[in-house]
Amino acid sequence: MSKLLIVGTVAFDAIETPFGKTDKILGGAGTYIGLSASNFGVKSGIVSVVGGDFPQEYLDMLNDRNIDTSGIEIVKDGKTFFWSGKYHNDMNSRDTLVTELNVLENFQPVVPEEFKDSKIVMLGNLHPAIQMSVIKQMTKKPALIVLDTMDFWMNIALDDLKAVMKEIDVITINDEEARQLSGEYSLVKAAEVIHEMGPKFVVIKKGEHGALLFSEGHMFYAPALPLASVFDPTGAGDTFAGGFTGYLAKTENLSFDNMKNAVIYGSNLASFCVERFGTERMIDLTQQEIKDRLELFKSLTQFDVDLD
Amino acid sequence: MSKLLIVGTVAFDAIETPFGKTDKILGGAGTYIGLSASNFGVKSGIVSVVGGDFPQEYLDMLNDRNIDTSGIEIVKDGKTFFWSGKYHNDMNSRDTLVTELNVLENFQPVVPEEFKDSKIVMLGNLHPAIQMSVIKQMTKKPALIVLDTMDFWMNIALDDLKAVMKEIDVITINDEEARQLSGEYSLVKAAEVIHEMGPKFVVIKKGEHGALLFSEGHMFYAPALPLASVFDPTGAGDTFAGGFTGYLAKTENLSFDNMKNAVIYGSNLASFCVERFGTERMIDLTQQEIKDRLELFKSLTQFDVDLD
Repeated sequence: MSKLLIVGTVAFDAIETPFGKTDKILGGAGTYIGLSASNFGVKSGIVSVVGGDFPQEYLDMLNDRNIDTSGIEIVKDGKTFFWSGKYHNDMNSRDTLVTELNVLENFQPVVPEEFKDSKIVMLGNLHPAIQMSVIKQMTKKPALIVLDTMDFWMNIALDDLKAVMKEIDVITINDEEARQLSGEYSLVKAAEVIHEMGPKFVVIKKGEHGALLFSEGHMFYAPALPLASVFDPTGAGDTFAGGFTGYLAKTENLSFDNMKNAVIYGSNLASFCVERFGTERMIDLTQQEIKDRLELFKSLTQFDVDLD
Repeated sequence: MSKLLIVGTVAFDAIETPFGKTDKILGGAGTYIGLSASNFGVKSGIVSVVGGDFPQEYLDMLNDRNIDTSGIEIVKDGKTFFWSGKYHNDMNSRDTLVTELNVLENFQPVVPEEFKDSKIVMLGNLHPAIQMSVIKQMTKKPALIVLDTMDFWMNIALDDLKAVMKEIDVITINDEEARQLSGEYSLVKAAEVIHEMGPKFVVIKKGEHGALLFSEGHMFYAPALPLASVFDPTGAGDTFAGGFTGYLAKTENLSFDNMKNAVIYGSNLASFCVERFGTERMIDLTQQEIKDRLELFKSLTQFDVDLD
């Protein structure tokens, strides 16, 4: 069992989908990653920042799940990062209605002493300079650093992103972003180009079409579970990242074969996340449900054909 | 080993992709289905129509592969069906430049006596009334009837399509068409609605994202092989159908588990089809290449994770 350090936003979201809308609810990449990883019983810590308006009960809820929140700075006279978005009918595209950075604007991450020797580091989607600052604070070289990013940082901080990409082992990125970053349309070629930029493992997330794992000529495909209804896609990618790193932290096996399992667990947990608004589904999720869904993933993809 | 009856166009195509363009080359759903199915050593026959301009060497090439062409009517003073299309840069969308129905306009399919007791019937994309006429000519109820269709027929011949759907066992259809036909966005729900319309098995083709097989609460997902380059997507769906039915004709096992294998073989063969223009790649394909690619499909999707 390895310690897992998570860096990412802890935030308020207001979400509108064809199924309804929410007031300000708990959100943020760090939150989703932490909740997802907590299903593997690992010791994890979140580095983030919130304002004085952030309810103690949310922190208590994270602590109850063995997630250390001492790295979440509380800026008493500041306001928590707020994002609001509206999903279109196809659930694959959304409009951002409001982005209030608030305390995130001057965020300087501080890794707690206890987590400076974490074997696995999950860098949630943030400015690449912040992601780099976390890596620099580690006193022991982590066994695995995973980075999530998005097109926004490619557009405004590409040099910083390229610099941090040289320091990491795994990048998770969606298909359109992989194409943008690499200049290649084929995801096979895109993964090769991105691999040359630093990370040994490239995970390309394709939303409802699943995720691809590439490493040095090896390729693995994890489907997304086809669902009768997607209620709210918010946090699915972060939940995937939490399942991926949580499983690796639990099993301490960084082979390509075990990475396959990690991708499957990422998809497994993400398939729950979208069933309800925000973090709702992640909060009441049981081990039995995760096991049952793993069986579903097996039956969805496993086949036994002879070669003659 | 079951006899396989194939109904579908035998045609000329002229194709333009970002990689180049062709003159009139051999094409048509019946051709692709037949070539693909021929890899399983089954006895198959194509019912179709061509004009006097159709080269005997193409018919000889099909015969050499154990494909009976006695059901391909030759209208001496007619011209063969011609389609011309241009693919966009993403290879997922295309413009039709020319459609000359020619001899197809008055096509009345005639099933040769020898194929009226075929156990498996593959109805390639054609007017649903033509597909129905083939079913009516069978003297023995086939063990499996597979139907491929497209949005064009939903738009101009929906009642005919609904009638033939009541007579078939498997429908293959792409994702957007499944949504149009069912009125449901979720493919899980779409498959349920389409199942209610007749077919016990629903195969939803998602192009580069693979294919889903649904039947009575069971679900299977076959990925498309991620490729460094897609040279020409023409015929990929028909090649899928040919691999699917060819494998079922060979194995004579119509269980859901064996349908999974058939879907994998369909994806396997389609992954070759797109590597070159038209039928080029299908014509020089070897058994060893198909076996090697099956291993690739296995390593792409198979995982071995414990449940604790």
